[in-house]
Order: sequence, then structure tokens, then C-alpha cells
Amino acid sequence: MEGIVREAQETICRALESLDGGRFGSETWERPGGGGGLSRVLEGGRVLERAGVNVSAVHGTLSTASARAMGGGRDLPGDDLSFHAVGLSLVLHPRNPHAPTAHANYRYIERGSAEAPGSWWFGGGSDLTPYLLYEEDARHFHRVLKEVCDRHDRDFYRRFKQACDEYFYLPHRGEARGVGGIFFDDLRDRPAEDLLAFAAECAGAFLDSYLPLLERRCREPRTEAERTWQLLRRGRYVEFNLLYDRGTRFGLDTGGRIESILVSLPPLARWETWQEPPRDSPEGRLMEVLRRPRAWAR
Amino acid sequence: MEGIVREAQETICRALESLDGGRFGSETWERPGGGGGLSRVLEGGRVLERAGVNVSAVHGTLSTASARAMGGGRDLPGDDLSFHAVGLSLVLHPRNPHAPTAHANYRYIERGSAEAPGSWWFGGGSDLTPYLLYEEDARHFHRVLKEVCDRHDRDFYRRFKQACDEYFYLPHRGEARGVGGIFFDDLRDRPAEDLLAFAAECAGAFLDSYLPLLERRCREPRTEAERTWQLLRRGRYVEFNLLYDRGTRFGLDTGGRIESILVSLPPLARWETWQEPPRDSPEGRLMEVLRRPRAWAR
Repeated sequence: MEGIVREAQETICRALESLDGGRFGSETWERPGGGGGLSRVLEGGRVLERAGVNVSAVHGTLSTASARAMGGGRDLPGDDLSFHAVGLSLVLHPRNPHAPTAHANYRYIERGSAEAPGSWWFGGGSDLTPYLLYEEDARHFHRVLKEVCDRHDRDFYRRFKQACDEYFYLPHRGEARGVGGIFFDDLRDRPAEDLLAFAAECAGAFLDSYLPLLERRCREPRTEAERTWQLLRRGRYVEFNLLYDRGTRFGLDTGGRIESILVSLPPLARWETWQEPPRDSPEGRLMEVLRRPRAWAR
Repeated sequence: MEGIVREAQETICRALESLDGGRFGSETWERPGGGGGLSRVLEGGRVLERAGVNVSAVHGTLSTASARAMGGGRDLPGDDLSFHAVGLSLVLHPRNPHAPTAHANYRYIERGSAEAPGSWWFGGGSDLTPYLLYEEDARHFHRVLKEVCDRHDRDFYRRFKQACDEYFYLPHRGEARGVGGIFFDDLRDRPAEDLLAFAAECAGAFLDSYLPLLERRCREPRTEAERTWQLLRRGRYVEFNLLYDRGTRFGLDTGGRIESILVSLPPLARWETWQEPPRDSPEGRLMEVLRRPRAWAR
């Protein structure tokens, strides 16, 4: 898994640099409790206003509270709280309001000896947050994910798409964060090698799912009103990540590396009294989709 | 209490309008479970970029979880979950980075018949969040609060100042939100009339504590770098309110009015990889104070 996420990080950053023209900075860090990671961040690019692509491979001992908050390890007896976790995590915030924000995260976690049932599992997913809706973009993004899922289990896409819609949801707004994608956790119902291959293909497909959209939309002409709308919607992104995202909470509660955890936040976000956009505007059509998640791939 | 908070809202909004030149909008709202409020918001003003001054007087029945999350009512037997709550809540985000953000909230809550010990209490406080530190402003703000406290109990200011420093703290950043003020909850250790008088004086002193600072600082010349710094620090304000503020959580969990709860968020906020400012800069001096809270009034 560590090799997979390192290679994916390298490939993704290289492709994004080639489109943007800017360069990702690199920072290696060590976790006091064990392990570390490589954080790569590009800020103030021509295409990407802020982008973070991180890998980490950490180990140590969990607090009982953290163990309970975790994925599959919840069911394990509490006598061995040692853990290993390897993951790739990325959030890309483009400058142009016509280009969607993308998020992906793939991780493998072991607790204790990794021999007891439920002592290892995979988690992850990828989802898209448009500010102005292009239905063909949402369909493309979902289609690529569905193709990967279908190669491994005919039921994966249906399950993980639904889990994604349920997870990336802001109950206080009655809105999804975006048009979804896939989300899975506690995945351990088949041999680890098969799930490793699945996670690897998911990570490998990220560029296919997203780069064509970014290439197309980063060149769209944009108005000031569209920029303001993007910043308002980014406010919702902040609300989700700080109020509900379990990874953010878990990271902050367990003393993770702040800059890596909060690199998911947008470079600039806006709040003002909500004005419902007209239903037949691009903004209104986005709101309809956020309030009633749609099937984007069949 | 309802008369007190309504009058304070009126007086505060009128004074702010007179300085800003803009007008507060008004929206009355009803809570489906009982009661309602009056929300007053000024956005895009000359001096105030975003300001919300809300009063609410609501009643209804608590869920067991909400009752547990509440203030003094925690200790009460769970057989009467009816409640009444009256409060004033305000957050002012000035445009000029030299002018601090101010927050105040004063509330009275009853559970059940309000006859059992612990079935009614007062809570509240007021705190200041500068972006560029003017020590004389912090001292003035604290001095006004201390004078009010001292008229009621010689120990109030010491206790409530310390509680404020403890409450408005971001553990993941190791920073206070600002230079503090006072904070109290579950206050019910003397006759309700005395505490009502205390809350009334606190609310009445808000303009004394804050308006002179706003008048002075809203006219300071500002640079683009100071504006960027202000937006970064406002990002921390967002982090505190969404990650830690109990009022925000309680409001969102109990189905409060979203626009009133989240009016505390700044109009515009920024995140980027943290660059520690030089220690002898105005930004660096602020950071020092946020990391080591000071005594501002004796």
C-alpha cells in the first residue's frame, strides 16, 4: 500500500504541475508517536488556487477513544491498541468557479497483529464538488469510478455511491456537499490482496476521473458573480469539513499534523445571508442536485 | 430578561448604524417548537463588513441529549424537559484589519418549573478578537468588563476572565481565539434578581467596551498584507466556531435557525500554509499574546 500511494502521489502531482505551470512544494514530516509522511502543496497556481496531495504511513498506540472512533477496529477487543495506517489524501481547489473541487482519500489500517478478524481494513473514496453544474462532468467522474468498481464487484458502485451521498451531507443545510462519487470504510470482506488491488486501481483512476474536467473548465470565462458564488459554496465545504468530517475530527483529536489535515480547507471562503438563486439559473440547478442526489452512472 | 435583551439590541444597532452609515436589516422568525426571535444583520457596510445582532425567546421540550449538553440543567432529574431560553447574541466583523472582531452573548434559561434548585441559570460573556494588537484596546475592553463585574462580586472578573481564556481556545493550534474578556455559565448561586441585574449591566456595557475601539480603528490606513493577515486569522475564527463552540453545536443539533447561528462566521476567510510572522512585527506580537494570555485589567 505504501508503494501504491507514493506512486499515485508522484503521478498526480506531476500531471497537475504540467497543467498548472506551478510547482508543488514538498515537506516530509515525522509523527512523534511513530512514522511520518510527505505533504505536497501547491498554492496560488494559475489553475489551482490551493491543492494538497499527502501521503502518510504512521504507527503507534491508540487511545481507547480513538480506537472507538475508528473504522473496522471498533469491534476488536481493546487489549492491543497498536496500529499501522497508510494513506493517500488529496483535495484540489481550482481557481475558476466553473471547475469543480475534487477530493480523494485511500487508506489501509491495521490494528494489533492484523491476524484477528476485523483487525485490518481498507477505506476511502473520491467525490466531486462543482460550483456551477455541468452534468456531463458529473457523469464522467462517476462513470470512471463505476468502471473501476465494476471490475471488482458488481455491487460496489451502487453501495459506495450511496454511502458517499450519505456521508458528504450537511444536515443543517439539507444539502449534499457536491455530486458525490464513492465512499467506503471497514472494507475487509475478501482477501487483502484483492482489496489492495481495488484501492490501487481507485487511486490510479483519479486522474482519469478528474483531469479532463479540470482541463476543460479552467479555461471557461468567469464573471465576478460566479466567483462570489464559488466562495459562498466553498463556505459550505468548510462547514462540512469542520463540523462533520470524521477524518478531520480524528486527525485533530489524535494530534495529527494540522497543516496536512486542514489543507482540505479552501484558500478563500465567504459567508453572507443566504439568497436562494433562481431555479433556472446554473446556481439554482446546482442547488437542486445538491438537495436531490441523482444517479450519474448506470 | 426579554425586555433587557430587546432594548440592548435596539441601542447597539442604532449606535452601530450611526457609525457605519449603513442600515441593519430585520427579520423576525418563529421557532416551530415554540417562540422565536428578531435577527438583525448588516452586511457590506462601510465600517462593518458583517454584523449580526440577534435576540431570541424560545421555549419547548428538550431531547435528553440536548438537556445533557446544556448548562446548569445537566444536574436536573430528566422528568421535565420543558425549557424557556431568552438571549442576546452578537458578532461584529469590521472591515478594517486594525479593528477587532467583537462577540457578546447573554442568556437566561429555565428548565421545567424553574423551582427546583438548578432549574434556572444565566450564561454569557463577551470577548475581543484583534487581528493587529493594540494593547490599549485590550486593556480598555477588559477594564469596562471588570468594572461591571466588580460592582456585583469582587471575584467575578477573575473567575470569568479565566473561564473566557479557557473556553475560547483552539487546542489544535495552541492559540486563544483572541484577547478574551469574560465568560460564565450555570450562574445561579445568588437570587435571580441580582443575576438579572448583572446580565443587564453586562449587556448595557457592550457599547462602552467596544465602540471607542471601533471608532478609532476603522479609520486606520491599511495595507493589502494586513488585509490578507486579517483573512487568515478570520480562518481561525471559523475553526473555533465550527469545531468547538458549544452554542453553535447546540444550535445546529437542536434545529436552531441556521442563519442566526452561523451569522457569527466572518464574511470572508482565508486558509493557506501557515507562515509564522516575525516576532517583532505587529502580527508576531499578536501571536505571542494568543499563545500566552495576559492580565489586561487588575
